[in-house]
Amino acid sequence: MTAEHEPAVASQRIQAVRDYLDALQQRICGALEAADGSARFVEDAWTRGEAEAGGRPAASSALVGLGRTRVLKDGAVFEQAGVNFSQVSGSRLPPAASAHRPELAGAPWSALGVSLVVHPRNPYLPTTHMNVRYFEARPDHEGNDRSWWFGGGFDLTPYYPFDADVVHWHTVARDAVAPFGDDVYPRWKQWCDEYFFLKHRNETRGVGGLFYDDLNAGGFERCFGLTRSVGNAFLDAYLPLVERRKGMPHGEREREFQLYRRGRYVEFNLVHDRGTLFGLQSGGRTESILMSLPPRVRFEYGYTPQEGSAEAKLADYLKPRDWLAG
Amino acid sequence: MTAEHEPAVASQRIQAVRDYLDALQQRICGALEAADGSARFVEDAWTRGEAEAGGRPAASSALVGLGRTRVLKDGAVFEQAGVNFSQVSGSRLPPAASAHRPELAGAPWSALGVSLVVHPRNPYLPTTHMNVRYFEARPDHEGNDRSWWFGGGFDLTPYYPFDADVVHWHTVARDAVAPFGDDVYPRWKQWCDEYFFLKHRNETRGVGGLFYDDLNAGGFERCFGLTRSVGNAFLDAYLPLVERRKGMPHGEREREFQLYRRGRYVEFNLVHDRGTLFGLQSGGRTESILMSLPPRVRFEYGYTPQEGSAEAKLADYLKPRDWLAG
Repeated sequence: MTAEHEPAVASQRIQAVRDYLDALQQRICGALEAADGSARFVEDAWTRGEAEAGGRPAASSALVGLGRTRVLKDGAVFEQAGVNFSQVSGSRLPPAASAHRPELAGAPWSALGVSLVVHPRNPYLPTTHMNVRYFEARPDHEGNDRSWWFGGGFDLTPYYPFDADVVHWHTVARDAVAPFGDDVYPRWKQWCDEYFFLKHRNETRGVGGLFYDDLNAGGFERCFGLTRSVGNAFLDAYLPLVERRKGMPHGEREREFQLYRRGRYVEFNLVHDRGTLFGLQSGGRTESILMSLPPRVRFEYGYTPQEGSAEAKLADYLKPRDWLAG
Repeated sequence: MTAEHEPAVASQRIQAVRDYLDALQQRICGALEAADGSARFVEDAWTRGEAEAGGRPAASSALVGLGRTRVLKDGAVFEQAGVNFSQVSGSRLPPAASAHRPELAGAPWSALGVSLVVHPRNPYLPTTHMNVRYFEARPDHEGNDRSWWFGGGFDLTPYYPFDADVVHWHTVARDAVAPFGDDVYPRWKQWCDEYFFLKHRNETRGVGGLFYDDLNAGGFERCFGLTRSVGNAFLDAYLPLVERRKGMPHGEREREFQLYRRGRYVEFNLVHDRGTLFGLQSGGRTESILMSLPPRVRFEYGYTPQEGSAEAKLADYLKPRDWLAG
């Protein structure tokens, strides 16, 4: 393989991932609209800087990119849902992304992904997040097999958790990655618990799911297949919960608790989430990055739920647990 | 001065600052309660770790401290006001605090301060923040004059700004520090504009005020006097605004805009504010640190105020301006 060859190969991989991501965004938006039954997604297509044909990075060190941010507001079921596609390139890999890959420091890079966050109206229906992404960096020398990797996952943040929902969620997650090895689910489930953790609260963001990064083992086809399995499984994991919980009666008390707990979502995303902070610090599109924040939130000093209440029960779900044991 | 002398001197300074801060917290809480006319502050007194007498750091490297967090909720005028006193000590100065003072790296330290955030109900009355703090580190060698410093300031975050309010605010700020030199106000005003800046939004948090850190020039008495001037000026700067704006009629539109703009306050405090992040990362008391967050908040993807509207006017106030020119 010659250096001149690289771009063509890279371009084919990126194009294959992009085709998948385009279709995934389309499919998820369609399914969420159908589940909502009322509101529609509105799309903002944006570009940034000047990208050369095929999404290759321009000669300058500036970030270039394009995206489609789709947001559904004020739905019957979803108070807000955002499903972003973005593809960005840079002429130099930033330190945050090359810390574990010194050989790629300063290399030209491209990243593309779909990222979504759904904030439902009903407090019995959990908030959820899903992301799949592909990263490619072109080292100066030829044929470096560490020059691309996948990452992603999905996780669930209930307010009033139901064991059946959590077990369903993790069962779909496990089954999605099972064809790729028995060790994948336990490793990525644990990674998810560790990543979505609020150290300053000593609690997880929710009941977890899957999280992975740096996925490169076994070759491109395997890793792309695994990533498609994760992306495709999301609707199977979430839509049944929507159907079960969207109509559950609730009142001001449950709404207030939901608003309060959404505050922890804000805390996680703005204080801990590497993706959010990297995006804001690297000059990403602020509105698209922060569409993950809940539409309405409440903070309250010194709140503690009444002992034995439904609200107090949540704390038991905010520590890692093996949901599929036995 | 001998090394054995140090603790006694340090203790006297800390005691003097502490007496002032105790009285300041008391005075401000009393004045805010009077201005509210309805709700009262509730105090949480807390301790952390084991402090030796006089607040000197214990032998271990753990953080030790005590505090009084006072929060007023659901007032007639103030939706939430928090006024914290805290005094913490550690056996090793953390890197964030010693970056500019390599000679103090790893030294035992003490910090004490009063910090407040007021979130008013009326959208015409700005949110405000004030902080005064004293820091002392004990270097291994004797008589290092860089072993203590003051910091602090106050800043104003309007939603529907009035020029008269902003000019009053900055006039009080200027007059408070004028006895200490003509250069103090312009320098600290600029520092405030630079510190309270949301890079990812390209806007300031509000119309600023005063911000300073590392204050040590001219000796302890001068710096303590200057800090007292700042602390004492806060009520003179803010209370007249409360009287002017607390009764102004407003509706859902103004409330919604206030909730939306409070989102920027959350973004600043969780993404940018060094005090907040240092507190959370160093294992500070989370509830006390995050009492700065507004009780109710709204985030909205892609919001832009209508051109020419009262809401659009705010943008002009979110870039540094010389309020006392002419």
